[in-house]
Amino acid sequence: MTEINPLDALTLEALASRDGIKWSLPGPGVIPAWIADMDFPVAAAVREALTRRAHGDLGYPGWIERPGGPLAVAFAERMESRYGWRPAPDHVRSFTDINQALQVILHLATRPGDEVAVHVPAYPPFLGTLAEMNRPALPIPMEPAGDSWGFDTGALAARLAEGRCRALLLVNPQNPTGRAFTREELTGLAELAERHDLLVISDEIHADLVHAPGGHISFATLLPERTVTLTSATKAFNLGGIRCSVAHVGSPALRATLAAQPAHLYGAAHVFGVEATVAAWRHGDEWLAEAMAVLDRNRRMIAERLPGGVGYRVPDATYLAWLDLSGLGLPEDPAAFLEREARVMLSAGPLFGPGGEGFARLNFATSGPVLSEILDRITRVAKTSS
Amino acid sequence: MTEINPLDALTLEALASRDGIKWSLPGPGVIPAWIADMDFPVAAAVREALTRRAHGDLGYPGWIERPGGPLAVAFAERMESRYGWRPAPDHVRSFTDINQALQVILHLATRPGDEVAVHVPAYPPFLGTLAEMNRPALPIPMEPAGDSWGFDTGALAARLAEGRCRALLLVNPQNPTGRAFTREELTGLAELAERHDLLVISDEIHADLVHAPGGHISFATLLPERTVTLTSATKAFNLGGIRCSVAHVGSPALRATLAAQPAHLYGAAHVFGVEATVAAWRHGDEWLAEAMAVLDRNRRMIAERLPGGVGYRVPDATYLAWLDLSGLGLPEDPAAFLEREARVMLSAGPLFGPGGEGFARLNFATSGPVLSEILDRITRVAKTSS
Ligand SMILES: Cc1ncc(COP(=O)(O)O)c(C=O)c1O
Ligand SMILES: Cc1ncc(COP(=O)(O)O)c(C=O)c1O
Repeated sequence: MTEINPLDALTLEALASRDGIKWSLPGPGVIPAWIADMDFPVAAAVREALTRRAHGDLGYPGWIERPGGPLAVAFAERMESRYGWRPAPDHVRSFTDINQALQVILHLATRPGDEVAVHVPAYPPFLGTLAEMNRPALPIPMEPAGDSWGFDTGALAARLAEGRCRALLLVNPQNPTGRAFTREELTGLAELAERHDLLVISDEIHADLVHAPGGHISFATLLPERTVTLTSATKAFNLGGIRCSVAHVGSPALRATLAAQPAHLYGAAHVFGVEATVAAWRHGDEWLAEAMAVLDRNRRMIAERLPGGVGYRVPDATYLAWLDLSGLGLPEDPAAFLEREARVMLSAGPLFGPGGEGFARLNFATSGPVLSEILDRITRVAKTSS
Repeated sequence: MTEINPLDALTLEALASRDGIKWSLPGPGVIPAWIADMDFPVAAAVREALTRRAHGDLGYPGWIERPGGPLAVAFAERMESRYGWRPAPDHVRSFTDINQALQVILHLATRPGDEVAVHVPAYPPFLGTLAEMNRPALPIPMEPAGDSWGFDTGALAARLAEGRCRALLLVNPQNPTGRAFTREELTGLAELAERHDLLVISDEIHADLVHAPGGHISFATLLPERTVTLTSATKAFNLGGIRCSVAHVGSPALRATLAAQPAHLYGAAHVFGVEATVAAWRHGDEWLAEAMAVLDRNRRMIAERLPGGVGYRVPDATYLAWLDLSGLGLPEDPAAFLEREARVMLSAGPLFGPGGEGFARLNFATSGPVLSEILDRITRVAKTSS
């Protein structure tokens, strides 16, 4: 008998009053399992830092925002203690969110028409950014490999040889498959990046969510001077609304380009963002361990409880289940069908680009009882439809 | 006998524990009256909104950030109710701070080498931005006029006729003089902007701080399609650390240029910033009236209590006293002298550019007793030195 994890005590009644987009968008009675916010209440350490600031001095902060500031130092400490990577705080700058950081890097380091390699299916806003900025995606298809996912380095090498690709947008751990890439996979990518002179933009926002015994490898340890690392505390610590992220710019040339921009052109960090992030990184790991225990149980519960005919590979990391619903023979997009018939809102597979057809992404960062209800609802309609 | 305004109850002991830059930078025993943060605690309505959010949902917010979102609507309502200006919420977008907004507008609407007209002395970060971005300042000197300040439109017209100026950076009310420009002055500037095809970037962040019976005139009411209005709640409601501001872009061409940028390139607003700003604008006016009562008393107290030989024109607006200390015959920059000898930290006049030599800016947004102590200290050393 294990004790009940307090994060596992959420009920549908309590969650229904949440006012974030996850819970406020779906219609009444629909359980949201779409956008990547967790249902867990945030860590006490973060809550306390925010509350203290809400009652404290809201003027210009005592710290100075610049590369090497408090956010950069907390980031560097965390990378070293968790991943054995020692980033230089002076090479770190803040952005509001990861998508801003990505757009700034693409804007300064690539040109319209340049291809950007990216594993697909992919986080939809990134596909949106590539399309909007006219940086055509060079897709690296994620393919079933044993009970996980892999990709074909040889095929990628052939596409890179065409010479139109300038950057690799690596999302590791990957969204939506939850794959934490192996050292072998990453080394293969690093070799290709070297050979084809690619900038590597490595989104590692899900790094803290790798399930044991797996581990996260910071790409910057492999190719320090080619890598821009993007991360924030918003995913692992459930703070999507604070808009505070960091970029570590390993490339000296890109650092010089950034330093030549007007200093405030891309904005400045705010007191709540910096303090919540620093509190999460310095004092949030007990909470994170509790969250990971629930998520680990959940990723396995899904494997046990999904109805026959639904494909699922237990993710290495994060709280996203990428479900192959094509076997159910549904008459329409599975997410639309499930929202109407099962009253659960998943993210529609086609939003994730190539490989998304027939799939849907289920966010399982919720309590056991709520996840159980979601799985019951899916099972019920899957049985009816088959 | 009037009741004591609760904002007037601050003591040096309580203030010394503030951790913002204003109070944490000066050495022990030095009273800060430099950076433009108020000492007053923020409005209860703002504090409550922030505290509620710190205990609430911190995920992606329920509102959508875009022109016409909740921040834009609250801004438009406030402009209409206070200034009779009806901005279109769809023409409003958010930035982190005003200096970011300024840099983005200059970046998109002007070119290196283009001159930007600006009243001097000027808010130092704006002079920094113009220098950094190589947009040479075309100075419009503020000149003593009666018991206030004016400027010479004819001289400006002559400089504009040289044809190198592309934009007017209007700061109204002006910092550091505290001048709230009259309709006549603004109409004169509007005529010049039309004649010389200038974009007007109107920083109205101090608008809510105009003392009765004066009033604020939104420049966009005069030249709707040439004006970009920049503002935020951070000055009038003392929220410098939240980094949340808005730009209303009246120019259709500039709106199109902005809309053609990648949507996230300049970042996104955060939940605390939006909620604090909306709370301040919708529910903060009772607090603001209390603050204005203290500031009004303070601006007059300074006139009564300053030692002979110090020049001071009571400001129309805001909480900044622009002191002419050149008559004291000090052996060095007055702010440096006062910090060392009087143990009060003012902003050094030369930072404000032309016209700043011999001056210092005193921030009087503090309690009566603290301001009284500041004035005593200045008086003491002024007497010794003369
Ligand atoms: C791969 C990935 N990157 C970034 C983010 C967060 O992006 P942003 O900081 O722009 O909200 C997410 C959120 O789900 C994500 O899955
Ligand atoms: C004229 C003026 N504009 C803007 C600001 C605030 O600038 P920011 O939002 O960049 O902190 C101030 C602060 O004192 C100011 O006086």
